[in-house]
Amino acid sequence: MASAPEGYYDIVIVGAGPVGLMLSTSLARWGYKIKHIDNRPEPTPTGRADGIQPRSLDLLRNMGLKQPLMKFKPAKVYEVAFWDPPKNKDGIIRTGTWASCPDFIDARYPFTALIHQGRIETVFIDDLRENGVEIQRPWTIKGFTSDAKSNSEYPVEVRLEHVDGLARETVRAKYLFGGEGARSFIREQLGIAVRHKDPIEHVWGVMDGVVKTDFPDIKMKCTIHSHHGSIMIIPREDNMVRLYIQIASSSEPDWNPRKTATAEEVQASAKKILQPYSIEWESVVWYSVYPIGQGISDRYTLDNRVFLGGDACHTHSPKAGQGMNTAFLDAVNLAWKIHHVEQGFASRDILNTYEPERKEVAETLLSFDNKYAKLFSQRIPQAKEVEMASRTEDQSADDNEFVKTFKESCEFTSGYGVAYGPNVLNWSPSHPAKSTLIHPAGTKLRTGRLMINADVTRVVDANVIHLEHAVPFNGSFRILVFAGNPSKTQTALRDFARALERKTSFFTAYRRADEATVTHHEKHNPHSRLYTFCTIFASRRSDVEIVRDVPGVLARYRDHIYADDRWDRRVPSAKAAAHAKMGLDEERGGVVVIRPDGYVSLVTSLVEGTGTADALDEYFGAFSTKTLGDITAQL
Amino acid sequence: MASAPEGYYDIVIVGAGPVGLMLSTSLARWGYKIKHIDNRPEPTPTGRADGIQPRSLDLLRNMGLKQPLMKFKPAKVYEVAFWDPPKNKDGIIRTGTWASCPDFIDARYPFTALIHQGRIETVFIDDLRENGVEIQRPWTIKGFTSDAKSNSEYPVEVRLEHVDGLARETVRAKYLFGGEGARSFIREQLGIAVRHKDPIEHVWGVMDGVVKTDFPDIKMKCTIHSHHGSIMIIPREDNMVRLYIQIASSSEPDWNPRKTATAEEVQASAKKILQPYSIEWESVVWYSVYPIGQGISDRYTLDNRVFLGGDACHTHSPKAGQGMNTAFLDAVNLAWKIHHVEQGFASRDILNTYEPERKEVAETLLSFDNKYAKLFSQRIPQAKEVEMASRTEDQSADDNEFVKTFKESCEFTSGYGVAYGPNVLNWSPSHPAKSTLIHPAGTKLRTGRLMINADVTRVVDANVIHLEHAVPFNGSFRILVFAGNPSKTQTALRDFARALERKTSFFTAYRRADEATVTHHEKHNPHSRLYTFCTIFASRRSDVEIVRDVPGVLARYRDHIYADDRWDRRVPSAKAAAHAKMGLDEERGGVVVIRPDGYVSLVTSLVEGTGTADALDEYFGAFSTKTLGDITAQL
Repeated sequence: MASAPEGYYDIVIVGAGPVGLMLSTSLARWGYKIKHIDNRPEPTPTGRADGIQPRSLDLLRNMGLKQPLMKFKPAKVYEVAFWDPPKNKDGIIRTGTWASCPDFIDARYPFTALIHQGRIETVFIDDLRENGVEIQRPWTIKGFTSDAKSNSEYPVEVRLEHVDGLARETVRAKYLFGGEGARSFIREQLGIAVRHKDPIEHVWGVMDGVVKTDFPDIKMKCTIHSHHGSIMIIPREDNMVRLYIQIASSSEPDWNPRKTATAEEVQASAKKILQPYSIEWESVVWYSVYPIGQGISDRYTLDNRVFLGGDACHTHSPKAGQGMNTAFLDAVNLAWKIHHVEQGFASRDILNTYEPERKEVAETLLSFDNKYAKLFSQRIPQAKEVEMASRTEDQSADDNEFVKTFKESCEFTSGYGVAYGPNVLNWSPSHPAKSTLIHPAGTKLRTGRLMINADVTRVVDANVIHLEHAVPFNGSFRILVFAGNPSKTQTALRDFARALERKTSFFTAYRRADEATVTHHEKHNPHSRLYTFCTIFASRRSDVEIVRDVPGVLARYRDHIYADDRWDRRVPSAKAAAHAKMGLDEERGGVVVIRPDGYVSLVTSLVEGTGTADALDEYFGAFSTKTLGDITAQL
Repeated sequence: MASAPEGYYDIVIVGAGPVGLMLSTSLARWGYKIKHIDNRPEPTPTGRADGIQPRSLDLLRNMGLKQPLMKFKPAKVYEVAFWDPPKNKDGIIRTGTWASCPDFIDARYPFTALIHQGRIETVFIDDLRENGVEIQRPWTIKGFTSDAKSNSEYPVEVRLEHVDGLARETVRAKYLFGGEGARSFIREQLGIAVRHKDPIEHVWGVMDGVVKTDFPDIKMKCTIHSHHGSIMIIPREDNMVRLYIQIASSSEPDWNPRKTATAEEVQASAKKILQPYSIEWESVVWYSVYPIGQGISDRYTLDNRVFLGGDACHTHSPKAGQGMNTAFLDAVNLAWKIHHVEQGFASRDILNTYEPERKEVAETLLSFDNKYAKLFSQRIPQAKEVEMASRTEDQSADDNEFVKTFKESCEFTSGYGVAYGPNVLNWSPSHPAKSTLIHPAGTKLRTGRLMINADVTRVVDANVIHLEHAVPFNGSFRILVFAGNPSKTQTALRDFARALERKTSFFTAYRRADEATVTHHEKHNPHSRLYTFCTIFASRRSDVEIVRDVPGVLARYRDHIYADDRWDRRVPSAKAAAHAKMGLDEERGGVVVIRPDGYVSLVTSLVEGTGTADALDEYFGAFSTKTLGDITAQL
């Protein structure tokens, strides 16, 4: 891949904001040749997007980028406070607080991390540099064509130019990605329209600064309504606080999308709103006024060669702090699909799943934004409702409309609620894979949803491991063999391992050409970059003996053999908590296939004979470039 | 302090190994002027000390240095495996494994982190640089004098020289510290003898390298005995493994302390010992042979101006991985005492506690080393004994000598077992503070031992906080006001806060001269560098209202107001887990004074009236430079 001739790239990425950086960081790690440009002379110096949601923290952790980010000491939001005017009085009082990621969500990091976008960009830029990619700045895109007929390998031609016109380049690429933000040149050139779900537009003022105040919740995320207006407070790194204030709305009679306000005017408003509390600014680090409307791009791609993502595809109010998180997920969704096509694993058709999967998330985000805002503007929730909503166990609470919406919204904003519908990647009864072993009764894993978090013990070194982070974001499917009780599953496991090695299996079909020269230190991809295997026994660590218990090719993944022997508060009486959390039989186990981006592909039973391996062949065969499966066995 | 004239320093530190670096890092953060030299041209490039024990991880975390260290991806040892020859057969078999920091120890990080000393040094050197201190290399000490009569402020004169004799300097300092390792020039010059507790000496070979092997426990810490000799295996960062092998012992008839072995000979031995498993080296990164005997320096200081620490004071077998950890604790023990003397808080006499506190730990280490080794050489422990030893609750297990020794040893090697005896800093019935409120019945905190770890919720931002890390290692006493149920303790808390402000209280006596100009962002030391206050309510976070519940000066520590509302597995039925873990009444609370290095000074009841504040005045008055306490109140 990296051996392409000069001027030829696997991908040209335009825009080095969150979506572009996540995409290029992922692809650079997997060895692709990247041209990445941005029209700004340097990374974001202050302000802009800043909220990293729980699920995004998981993703960053999985990429080894959470620690470098935490070095900057982001503020952590665990709770949100609501302030409203008291009855028949001036001023504001706290009417409630609640967890931003309540306990019913099994989040590894149940908080939002707040830090300015430039810091986040830096973490990616450093990682890119280690993989030999430098952002070319300040450069812009002047035009492009995409024509697979004239050049089937590098169908995209892209014209780039220094923003001052000092230099020009024309390059060819397999893909072009537009991550240029709301005013995307690439989207415009493609003639793709932006559809506005809610016609109401707003002008927002946003200010980052250091304040002195006696307002008690200045270090919490707050939504404040007063007789003098509304404001949102978000704590930040370095003693800073961010203020969002609505300056104008198209729902007002004197609506003017060009309406603006000075920093001093916003400060004066904030002072009035916060009364009886005082607030003074020691410094203002960033201040911006911008009009924003909800919008979704009609298409994310026209030809599966030129793609859009991030703000180029969806814009919405900054209040839910979803912009960057949605951008991240756009990027990882696209990255692994490109990877699997370019590796020759998957048919080019899987790229058709990018737009519907990500567009549906954007639509859910926008309608959630509306619905939630309305519910809040109607009435103040009662303390009892909040408590009901936060509880893990009480399902009857869902009858209350407010509680239901609250729960959905928490799940959604945390990132754990993202759900991809049935398609060739996310199994459902309409999937071509028809094995009756698929989706056994009892499983709590839902296809198209994230895997459930669980702790396990690694056998070789007794380290406690987050199973969901065991395999890094390496572009591979993760095949988790929950092996139950080894005395019960011994034969099934041996049969499964043996069937994997059949001539027409997905395992054999996509083995690495360089397998013989792979170092014995390779942990994740000794056989193929398509998959990584993990085997998890419902045993105590010291009772697992790899050489005895792990058959055939599975034993090669010695760093991914685990004991399911960690106690978990959510399933306190389970003998094997990870099995129990996934809803798999603690004796019989089961096999779970996870997409490279962490979403569940399918779950099957682990049975004696070839059935389990057959089910996996059926699944992968639905989108693989080769025909898979032992035909006789399927009859 | 930093305004001393040229050539004058607060301290000259010789040696930039773990002890010297920890001392200078601590003092540099607190603003002292430091001359720090090392005779090596650069930090340790490979090998040497590498084991960071659980308690040291706590300390590094408390200093904000754990994350930079973890960036290097140290190996983590959670379990230790024992291998022995099978009965009447050749080869080796695993006879048991156990946790290196078992569950009965309430450790935050229940593992040992393994990484080569150079990485660790780098982390400190980077931190020092941020505080304006550069190690002067390669320089050595040529001589020194200490004479308080000729110069009471800077009594120590030190002559330094470039190792190649290229340059010379003579400087004056308040203190001189020798952290030069086992062959300490400063110790020799002082004429301090090293006493050998156990006359047996050993020659060790140690090898770091990358291997290929089918030995299943190569990623665990292993003690292997075979008919061909013994070996110890320790996993390392970057796929490395360390091998310790005993080359000679003075207990052997042909003992020769100069006996050596080549790397090839050690590898050949290892191959024999590991049979029937194979082992091949892909690379050897470090190899060293060194003779070592157990020894303790007779004195750690003669005049409380020139001090010794680390290997200059104690040498022992590398097997227990205690060298660097003991060095760290020598340094922090001394650092805060120098700080409190130099700040004018404490009488110079507290420096008398450095030697007995740290020397006793070294002696415990050495006798533990012997006792434990003997117990193991006698017989192989039974699986049942190991299980008994690992359990939290079963006290009867202590009757078994093996189990008792094992438990003690785990506690000791984890660092959680370090215990300082009664003295002016660690309260006991013989302490000058005689208040009957001290050491209330039920408390689980032991003076001279570490505070117990606990999670709490910070009130201002709802962040979950490790209480033991709430206050960084800032040189201050931590005064933890466990405030119980606010409806019950309201008056006691108000009385306590009021009594703190009395004219002759420790609180008032040592207020900062620059208090009026301290920024409102200051979290830890708004009033004084002597102390930081934390207030912990046995309430839910949302029920605490700082302005209503936290009286007087305590409210100024708004970033250290906590709610004890986190569930803890170790006290599952407690309403207020932190109170319960400390053994404090969940209704009535209590006040805990923690030394700057994390050890418990004393515990008192929280009562109405001035009693609680009086008890603290009595405690601090025992070593303060000013007379403390309201005489009338004490009558």
